[in-house]
Amino acid sequence: MLIYIENVPGRDPAYRISADAVRAALGEAARHCELVECMSDAPDLAALARARYFVGSRLDTARIREHGRGLRMVHCTSAGVEAYLPLDWLPPQAVFTNSSGVHADKAGEFGLLALLMLNDRIPLHATSQRAHRWHRVLSTPVRGKTVLIYGTGALGGAVAERAALMGMQVWGVRRSGKPHPSLHRVFTPDQFEQALPQADFLLAACPLTAATRGAIGARQLALLPAHAGVVNMARAAVMDYGALADLLEQGRLGGAVLDVFDPEPLPADARWWDVPRLMVIPHVSSDNPVDYIERCLAIFARNVAADQAGRPLENVVDASLGY
Amino acid sequence: MLIYIENVPGRDPAYRISADAVRAALGEAARHCELVECMSDAPDLAALARARYFVGSRLDTARIREHGRGLRMVHCTSAGVEAYLPLDWLPPQAVFTNSSGVHADKAGEFGLLALLMLNDRIPLHATSQRAHRWHRVLSTPVRGKTVLIYGTGALGGAVAERAALMGMQVWGVRRSGKPHPSLHRVFTPDQFEQALPQADFLLAACPLTAATRGAIGARQLALLPAHAGVVNMARAAVMDYGALADLLEQGRLGGAVLDVFDPEPLPADARWWDVPRLMVIPHVSSDNPVDYIERCLAIFARNVAADQAGRPLENVVDASLGY
Repeated sequence: MLIYIENVPGRDPAYRISADAVRAALGEAARHCELVECMSDAPDLAALARARYFVGSRLDTARIREHGRGLRMVHCTSAGVEAYLPLDWLPPQAVFTNSSGVHADKAGEFGLLALLMLNDRIPLHATSQRAHRWHRVLSTPVRGKTVLIYGTGALGGAVAERAALMGMQVWGVRRSGKPHPSLHRVFTPDQFEQALPQADFLLAACPLTAATRGAIGARQLALLPAHAGVVNMARAAVMDYGALADLLEQGRLGGAVLDVFDPEPLPADARWWDVPRLMVIPHVSSDNPVDYIERCLAIFARNVAADQAGRPLENVVDASLGY
Repeated sequence: MLIYIENVPGRDPAYRISADAVRAALGEAARHCELVECMSDAPDLAALARARYFVGSRLDTARIREHGRGLRMVHCTSAGVEAYLPLDWLPPQAVFTNSSGVHADKAGEFGLLALLMLNDRIPLHATSQRAHRWHRVLSTPVRGKTVLIYGTGALGGAVAERAALMGMQVWGVRRSGKPHPSLHRVFTPDQFEQALPQADFLLAACPLTAATRGAIGARQLALLPAHAGVVNMARAAVMDYGALADLLEQGRLGGAVLDVFDPEPLPADARWWDVPRLMVIPHVSSDNPVDYIERCLAIFARNVAADQAGRPLENVVDASLGY
């Protein structure tokens, strides 16, 4: 049973998938596996043709389609998979699995941090500091204020949990509309606009899909109260940054904490660097370099075991939902 | 029984001590009280001479000494009282009480915010943003990291409680050296330097006294690990900002979040505005404008009742300790 491991040249060593790490994750099951580790620019196409499982990042989907005909599972060591959709490249008997959930601890902390920053007007203070301006604006405690979380999967759920710990009212927009243990109120995407005028904070933590692209546009942002703060730790294309910047420049909205941009790295002449009360975070909200690959491989190893036992797999990407 | 209420012209109305608010705080006891409310620039000296209790802010201590000879308690609606020491102006049979504790909720939240900001390298990201520089530096979760809190009274204790909630190791420097419910380890001021090399974060939350002035100097800051973050929500004179700025400019220390300066407002040409990885917060960490005076007056009213009943008062300033 061959497992094909692919790494990309030039990536931070913290994200390298080594055969040793795969072996450690598989445990006892590793004895029945042949592991082949390749760089993406020096593939072993013969091994790929024999492979049953594939694990990698920044996937060359054309190559997988052409050479990975025996694959039963392709696992990627990231959570966001919008770059791989539609799944027309996936070998017919294979499933595509992602690493959603490995970011939850770090992302939950960052989400809470962003909410506290907005509540204490840190984006305003950072703007004042750039102008050497002592400008005292007081805040009340965050307890009792309302955050509306757009997307309540692993990331949004981890933020919700911590916001509740601080005594916040935690509302969520959830595709299913089902109750959620960390949410005081649940809205379906259809009800999103109803909730906005009551939100002190709006935090985007959804995957980028056909349904979420542009979901937080000029109209939705204008429905927020004038003091509201906005966080994006999802994907830039979820939100209309032009409309957001216009509002901030007009003196509306308390502030924004944005962790995702398009393109990244953000060019030096991008508008967002200088928008008042807008903090540019260089896409670090959810990355915890310690044991990152180990956490991804734990999901992969559980899925290898499940597939061997004929049990259902976890983290299977649903092409129709887009995540 | 006369209560003399003094307000200062030009202050934010949120900080006005009205006779109505005093009456509300006193409750039933107000029926036996005569309340006189004056502005500090239009005092009623005859009333002051008859007053048993005084409540105000930005006290004119010379006037109280000269005209308030019948006072049994002078209460000030602030927590920091370093400007009123020594207490040589206090009428001989009077005690001086402060409003320590009213800041705890807001300050506790701010302290947690500052720690999370330092952990997620927000001061670095703010510096990068000013330079339009996309510079990704990843962080690990704050869970398990160590914060050393210098001063564990109402403010430091409120921070300790919230840091523990995030799974941090919470150490404190405490004059008494006694155990504290929110601290995993307690150090006496003599042991402060021993603790510094193990601290991921150092947070100052002490009153300014003869013992704390300059307590966090160049030597103490140099004992911190190179990645450590520093918070000051006490008073500027507790810490050597010149040494701190030197370290930051040399590339040492992860960052600093400073809420207190000397003088305030910070002049436009002050060095601190432009020090890398240093965030200037305009002395707002602990101020919660909602119900501020009500919270101060609750202490005052409890003390009036205690004094009438011959019970010991709370929040009595100890001139020998300086708080």
